[in-house]
Amino acid sequence: MEECLFCKIIKGEIPSTKIYEDENVYAFKDIEPVAPVHILVVPKKHISSLNEIKEEDEILIGKIHIAITKIAKELGIDKDGYRVINNCGKDAGQTVMHLHFHIVAGVNMGEKLI
Amino acid sequence: MEECLFCKIIKGEIPSTKIYEDENVYAFKDIEPVAPVHILVVPKKHISSLNEIKEEDEILIGKIHIAITKIAKELGIDKDGYRVINNCGKDAGQTVMHLHFHIVAGVNMGEKLI
Repeated sequence: MEECLFCKIIKGEIPSTKIYEDENVYAFKDIEPVAPVHILVVPKKHISSLNEIKEEDEILIGKIHIAITKIAKELGIDKDGYRVINNCGKDAGQTVMHLHFHIVAGVNMGEKLI
Repeated sequence: MEECLFCKIIKGEIPSTKIYEDENVYAFKDIEPVAPVHILVVPKKHISSLNEIKEEDEILIGKIHIAITKIAKELGIDKDGYRVINNCGKDAGQTVMHLHFHIVAGVNMGEKLI
């Protein structure tokens, strides 16, 4: 765990622009934004990817999504909309092995998915 | 609810190629796939978008993601990876107002998100 970039960000050992935090969830600005709004939402618990979630994590995954809706309202992107993306594994381009959900907004993404 | 396309698919009133089903979740092939694997995963409960989830839906959202991991293992896409996408609202290109998560796989998507 010591080597995990996002665990270090959650602990404040590496700086980040915090957007939201609660008991279970931490959210911060992506340092290489692909859109006017680009936030990463992560569980404080280290889970390496979506592949690794267990049934005991169901509520945590739900809480992450509740946090996403709160962040969307807070940032005012709930009306025009936003995309939530989880990349799991190499074909999806997952680069940090700590479960994270991207919130992307502020641009019309149309119906193109990938 | 009567007019909802995905509610009709869940009830079998409109045909779909079912990939997975349990008490809470239904998954089927997207009829306009953007990649070799393109599945839609929906709650049987009608929720119009991620914006509309409530704290009472936390476990349901978790169960959807557990189902996603089961589908990924079943289809053998868990090793090479897959992307999970939720489009919420018009900027994200949400076209059906019933909460749904896309699973996209079978192609290297690289680090390009949108």
